[in-house]
Amino acid sequence: MLRGKVIGNIVSTNKLDKLVGFKFLEIQLIENTQLTDKYIVAVDRTVSAGIGEEVLITTGSGARMALCDESCPIDAVVVGVVDKIQ
Amino acid sequence: MLRGKVIGNIVSTNKLDKLVGFKFLEIQLIENTQLTDKYIVAVDRTVSAGIGEEVLITTGSGARMALCDESCPIDAVVVGVVDKIQ
Amino acid sequence: MLRGKVIGNIVSTNKLDKLVGFKFLEIQLIENTQLTDKYIVAVDRTVSAGIGEEVLITTGSGARMALCDESCPIDAVVVGVVDKIQ
Amino acid sequence: MLRGKVIGNIVSTNKLDKLVGFKFLEIQLIENTQLTDKYIVAVDRTVSAGIGEEVLITTGSGARMALCDESCPIDAVVVGVVDKIQ
Amino acid sequence: MLRGKVIGNIVSTNKLDKLVGFKFLEIQLIENTQLTDKYIVAVDRTVSAGIGEEVLITTGSGARMALCDESCPIDAVVVGVVDKIQ
Repeated sequence: MLRGKVIGNIVSTNKLDKLVGFKFLEIQLIENTQLTDKYIVAVDRTVSAGIGEEVLITTGSGARMALCDESCPIDAVVVGVVDKIQ
Repeated sequence: MLRGKVIGNIVSTNKLDKLVGFKFLEIQLIENTQLTDKYIVAVDRTVSAGIGEEVLITTGSGARMALCDESCPIDAVVVGVVDKIQ
Repeated sequence: MLRGKVIGNIVSTNKLDKLVGFKFLEIQLIENTQLTDKYIVAVDRTVSAGIGEEVLITTGSGARMALCDESCPIDAVVVGVVDKIQ
Repeated sequence: MLRGKVIGNIVSTNKLDKLVGFKFLEIQLIENTQLTDKYIVAVDRTVSAGIGEEVLITTGSGARMALCDESCPIDAVVVGVVDKIQ
Repeated sequence: MLRGKVIGNIVSTNKLDKLVGFKFLEIQLIENTQLTDKYIVAVDRTVSAGIGEEVLITTGSGARMALCDESCPIDAVVVGVVDKIQ
């Protein structure tokens, strides 16, 4: 999994029918304690992460396992909020 | 998912039978607000994105979920047009 | 597979139900004999690796094969502790 | 998908039984109009691309969808020849 | 597929039951004719590559297709020895 900071919401009107109602977050990736200059877009279905929160992201086919419908055309999903690393 | 700008259409006459009729777009990837020097090719089946538009791209096995036939030999597909990030 | 050093435990209260009870480790990746500045988060279900130990990590869909439930939304798992390379 | 230029044929006598008869091409990847210093090996089953030709390559699990037998242990396949980008 | 040079054997006593008896090789990746500073660990079940040999590696879900049991938690496997590129 990757760690990242939520920095925005992506607005997309023209998108696949299967993705209607999905929330897409712009995420800035974190390496250890540093924000990087790498970004990905992840779906958030159940965690409801807010702007500025640090999240855990599952990528690849595992991302679809977080949704009720495993045939969704996505490749990254927020699976948790990071409280701290100890 | 990745964000990118559509910069061209790829013309390919000699290709696999399963890919006949597919539209292949050359995409320049975007990190946050910056165009990068990374590029990928993505299929566009239903979004009909035009040159210069910013799009959302699903990669990997999730890309096949965007097509009617999940056995297509592709690894990236346009799933939406990005209006804005807020 | 990748090699890395366990450097911390990730605490996450707000996470997907499917991930409750999972241990998430912060891992610093190793290239040959060098620690790199790349990091990933991996689940540890059975190896019980401790802080400072060098581990072997399987990523992608293969990670789910290490769990009893192959529908878990994860993409990296600790599959072993590295004793040495000879 | 990725774009690349075919620069050689890989000769391998000692290989898995499932791969006997496969043609493996050494490919130099292209970013937009530039050859890069990144290379991958891709199988060519039906396109018959020649040395110097620019090709389209599908990677990951999608690569196996290009073959009759979807259980082949490969991760990259040539799916077309690029005529031009317009 | 990737090309790389076998540089060592990884010894791991504490590992998942499904991986007992597997041979894990430390591989230094090759780009065209150059050894790089990137490394991965790959399973070798049938090729029996020796230290110093150049090998072909399949990564991702395709790696599991090289084994009898497709539910093994691995993501890279040696599929052949490279004799030469012509």
